[in-house]
Amino acid sequence: MSSTLPAQTNLESERSLRVVSFLDPVQADINAVEAMLNEEIRSDVRAAYAISGHTLSAGGKRLRPAAVVLSARAVRNSFPAKTVYASASAVELIHMASLIHDDVVDNTDERRGRPTANVIYGNQISVLVGDYLLAKSIYLAAREGVLEVIRIFSKVTVGLSEGEVLQITAQGDPDTTEETYFDIIRRKTAGFIAGCCEVGAVLSDATPAVRDALSEYGMSLGLAFQIADDLLDFLGDPAVTGKPRGSDLREGKMTLPLIAAYRALDEKDHRRQQIAGWIREPETLTQEAVDMIVATIYEFNGFDYAREAAVNQVAEAQAKITHLLPASPYRDSLCALAEYALGRTS
Amino acid sequence: MSSTLPAQTNLESERSLRVVSFLDPVQADINAVEAMLNEEIRSDVRAAYAISGHTLSAGGKRLRPAAVVLSARAVRNSFPAKTVYASASAVELIHMASLIHDDVVDNTDERRGRPTANVIYGNQISVLVGDYLLAKSIYLAAREGVLEVIRIFSKVTVGLSEGEVLQITAQGDPDTTEETYFDIIRRKTAGFIAGCCEVGAVLSDATPAVRDALSEYGMSLGLAFQIADDLLDFLGDPAVTGKPRGSDLREGKMTLPLIAAYRALDEKDHRRQQIAGWIREPETLTQEAVDMIVATIYEFNGFDYAREAAVNQVAEAQAKITHLLPASPYRDSLCALAEYALGRTS
Repeated sequence: MSSTLPAQTNLESERSLRVVSFLDPVQADINAVEAMLNEEIRSDVRAAYAISGHTLSAGGKRLRPAAVVLSARAVRNSFPAKTVYASASAVELIHMASLIHDDVVDNTDERRGRPTANVIYGNQISVLVGDYLLAKSIYLAAREGVLEVIRIFSKVTVGLSEGEVLQITAQGDPDTTEETYFDIIRRKTAGFIAGCCEVGAVLSDATPAVRDALSEYGMSLGLAFQIADDLLDFLGDPAVTGKPRGSDLREGKMTLPLIAAYRALDEKDHRRQQIAGWIREPETLTQEAVDMIVATIYEFNGFDYAREAAVNQVAEAQAKITHLLPASPYRDSLCALAEYALGRTS
Repeated sequence: MSSTLPAQTNLESERSLRVVSFLDPVQADINAVEAMLNEEIRSDVRAAYAISGHTLSAGGKRLRPAAVVLSARAVRNSFPAKTVYASASAVELIHMASLIHDDVVDNTDERRGRPTANVIYGNQISVLVGDYLLAKSIYLAAREGVLEVIRIFSKVTVGLSEGEVLQITAQGDPDTTEETYFDIIRRKTAGFIAGCCEVGAVLSDATPAVRDALSEYGMSLGLAFQIADDLLDFLGDPAVTGKPRGSDLREGKMTLPLIAAYRALDEKDHRRQQIAGWIREPETLTQEAVDMIVATIYEFNGFDYAREAAVNQVAEAQAKITHLLPASPYRDSLCALAEYALGRTS
């Protein structure tokens, strides 16, 4: 790490570089989307513009816009650029809105190493600016005038909020099952990414079979992405992920590695009661408790179990598209994106 | 008041009756919309369904669906019923979402005599269910497939959240101007009702002139409605309005009656400093302070000023439509709706 650059800047640029490699074929598209986003968030209401700008400039992987653009180009390289960019911008606006509302809901005070909007501007305005961005996303999609795209986006947003509600409901419940876990992440993360890929397919006039395949690719990609995220929460380097290890535990969330280990624990094992107690009352969780939970997950192969589930999803994602899409740099990028979901460190 | 009926039920039925009288010509439509709403809020996510049902069953005037239906019928009595009902349901879903988020934002614990969703289910889930309803509204509108309607709804929702942000920004500022006040209520309340009327017009294939007239009617109606609401906050009977007198003051909000009185107060009048202090720090507001502010508004004719502004808007609303729409029971209802906005007591 250079001593002349602030650590965060350095990290951000490393992160961008890592993403860029397989996004090369659509870098010009992604730049066009970025420019459109900067334009669309403008508002004569200062606070709305400031929070939107704060959230947009915090960066992020732009995974969802990339999924729209790559899917569109993988079907047909000559696509209706303006409509695709508008749709790709709209999904990022929905994602930004959901991040802002999540940070309010979870009382998060830092994201990607920067204070969250709710910390700077307060919960009240943050809730409203989330609504503002949601509405803007539909406005943008409606302006371009593809009804099918709006249908997919609104279905995705319904699922996204249902998934979040399910997640909140499951918080503090040590008996959260693998089935519930997958139900949550399918709606919250994977359904959204599936929708992005489906929109790309629709805009390139894909056949129904190709449209379904891209949607299923997105679903598997999203599942892999979320499982990898949940693994990182236990095992990632806080200096790289930008959040402390075990932050899901601190919210009383049972994710796949812990679910797998917890169900393998004997009823009489005292660790079972301890873990249940921490999940029910996460405010009692100490660093030692986190370390003990991580050790228990290792002992019962919870990390391996989750990693295998993610690996399987990546393989499924790739299989979905290799048969139905013609070979192209864009199809390669979609496959690389799935690998990236697995190997990412932040 | 009957001694055998709980007070609230009695009040609710009185209120409904008063509304019903001029909604008679569209009562069957409103019932169809109500049935559709009950269907649309269903979700296999229990908490999402429970909060939506709680908010829907709390009742309310269904002013916005009525505006859609009346506008559509006033243009052309034979209208595309299914699409109009879906649009009328969609606006009520947007309204419900905004009420739920408002209650979170304002920490409201009671609405229409019942505990709010945030009190029963908590802020976290309430924010997410608000998002869920917003997304549902677009999904419903998109399912019916009129792109222009979605454009209007998303523009309205952008304005709604911008207006709320402006309002939060102005809270605690005794120097809030009449211009800012109108900017806020134009975006927040009036723009929404204008959008409802415009949607009704669009669905009945109105000419551009009629569409504009109905939109302007809705804007004036909405302004009158909000000014009347702000008057009620000072002068209404808490047993009828369901909220304590001066609740805007308790949130540090300057509304038209107070803005008019405050600017008339001499710079050296000690009441000016006092009022400014209470607006800046509303937690210091006592019942005596509220009484003193009300007396001051009376002294400087702030209530008359606001009432006159509302009367003017009602007259403008009626003028907009009497020339351009053919005589019909629906046009009469639109005119009566404007009168109702003025004379309402809750």
